[in-house]
Amino acid sequence: MTVDRDIIIIGGGPAGLTAGLYTGRSMLNVLLLEKLSPGGQVLTTHWVENYPGFPGGVSGFDLMDKMKDQALEFGLAIQSGEVVSIQPGGPEQDYHRVVLTDGELTCRGLIIATGAQPRKLGLSNESAMVGKGVSYCGTCDGPFYRGMTVAAIGGGDTALEESLFLTKFVSKVFLIHRRDEFRGTKVLRDRVRRSDKIEVIWDTVVTAITGDDQVTGVALKNVKTNEASTLPVDGVFPLIGVQPISDFAKGVVNLDDGGFITTNESMETSVKGIFAAGDVRSKILRQISTAVGDGAIAAFMAEKYMEQLH
Amino acid sequence: MTVDRDIIIIGGGPAGLTAGLYTGRSMLNVLLLEKLSPGGQVLTTHWVENYPGFPGGVSGFDLMDKMKDQALEFGLAIQSGEVVSIQPGGPEQDYHRVVLTDGELTCRGLIIATGAQPRKLGLSNESAMVGKGVSYCGTCDGPFYRGMTVAAIGGGDTALEESLFLTKFVSKVFLIHRRDEFRGTKVLRDRVRRSDKIEVIWDTVVTAITGDDQVTGVALKNVKTNEASTLPVDGVFPLIGVQPISDFAKGVVNLDDGGFITTNESMETSVKGIFAAGDVRSKILRQISTAVGDGAIAAFMAEKYMEQLH
Repeated sequence: MTVDRDIIIIGGGPAGLTAGLYTGRSMLNVLLLEKLSPGGQVLTTHWVENYPGFPGGVSGFDLMDKMKDQALEFGLAIQSGEVVSIQPGGPEQDYHRVVLTDGELTCRGLIIATGAQPRKLGLSNESAMVGKGVSYCGTCDGPFYRGMTVAAIGGGDTALEESLFLTKFVSKVFLIHRRDEFRGTKVLRDRVRRSDKIEVIWDTVVTAITGDDQVTGVALKNVKTNEASTLPVDGVFPLIGVQPISDFAKGVVNLDDGGFITTNESMETSVKGIFAAGDVRSKILRQISTAVGDGAIAAFMAEKYMEQLH
Repeated sequence: MTVDRDIIIIGGGPAGLTAGLYTGRSMLNVLLLEKLSPGGQVLTTHWVENYPGFPGGVSGFDLMDKMKDQALEFGLAIQSGEVVSIQPGGPEQDYHRVVLTDGELTCRGLIIATGAQPRKLGLSNESAMVGKGVSYCGTCDGPFYRGMTVAAIGGGDTALEESLFLTKFVSKVFLIHRRDEFRGTKVLRDRVRRSDKIEVIWDTVVTAITGDDQVTGVALKNVKTNEASTLPVDGVFPLIGVQPISDFAKGVVNLDDGGFITTNESMETSVKGIFAAGDVRSKILRQISTAVGDGAIAAFMAEKYMEQLH
């Protein structure tokens, strides 16, 4: 059976573009599908300090532009398209069908690099304030808040860990949690309790983020007393989890409890010829550095898979 | 017990420098030990096309310089020193001892990122002839052999890739392989077959390199017929794989059959608090992209490990 492409990559963040660069450089017939424009979550990151090779840092936009240009140099085709579902194909499982909102494509190797997005608080100006004081990643953006006061929101391991990490830089973290106890592990709860820089605000939710060009504070509501209050802060870190973009792959490849795609270290999913790379994958650390590593491996393995089909 | 450093990183290639960038950015007291000068094997690579973020490519030297500068910005200390052995330390295994040729250092978390180096043919004058016609890197040294005849030795992906690259410069590549088929991937095998500048010599090993001040040829032996012959060439490129720099860790952490350090996906070795990252690790793909991913994960896990000691 003839297929449209040797390899289709779904998602144009660092993992997808790296997979595109590698497979393109290998002279394969590759298409990268991206819902919006290539770049992924990095586009929402104002300044990237921890992707190696850029002393002084680089803007998220510039970095992704460079990654895209480099992949294009090696012949990667990029097409705008939203994937609705995927179907491992054929009686011999030697091709895959990618169903788009406006059509269908077939390929031999499929690389899923759709990423994940931070779970949002759901406040009206939340997205508009990203890069202006709202950040979903303490590890990434903590150093930009040296000596400042920030609000962190959440109660799980990530919220506790990130709050503790933030204390290395900020002068004060208000850790806002909607319940009266944390879900996070004991060792982290203990450390949060011992920190003289973290003040926990229990039973409370954030109802608004204030500020125009820059975050100036948050409006709070105690869920038990219904009492409203305000809190002046320089930064807001919603740390209530990340959500993989994997709905279209549900029931096809194995997912973990959080909906992330499970793979082995070679980026192979539970279905032969389908690989996953980057933030959408079940993994311990989601960074640009780890995404490009994943992308290179997925490309290498997809190429090996294709050759073995012949 | 007081230790000299929170974390010691051995090796200053992409994996080590990335681990240094991350741990330094986390305000830990980190030292990177490097035998020569930071940069690793990348320094011997003339031009890097496939590290994402650099359209048009970047010289190996420049890229490593940038990675080093970036890590220094976050407070990484770099010290020249050769590690002789490591000793997981203390009755409670809560520190490690790093023995240098000229002293000793202790740390909580240890990250091994010593990399790998080209495997040698094992001929008596081989090392002496490096720079006089013997080279382990076609990508680096190809341009010096313009219009000349060279011998490449090997049958894997690297050997095929490098031989193809050499054809841009040389008039003829004799590709000498000890078996009757290549291990390399099909696309490369096809390209080698199509090249009118590459002549494959099957079932053959190099038994000697001839020449005094400059390579003049190689002595060959057919392993099936035992027939000996000579082949006049201007250059010799042994492309038979890489050898991890892990002798100092032998008997301490588990190694695979090739001497590479085995880890899980979190870069944890068989010894608690000792991590490995980059080319020295047992892994499927050795690239700058995968080394920086490893370095970031090793740093993240070493930091987690340290916190749990308190």
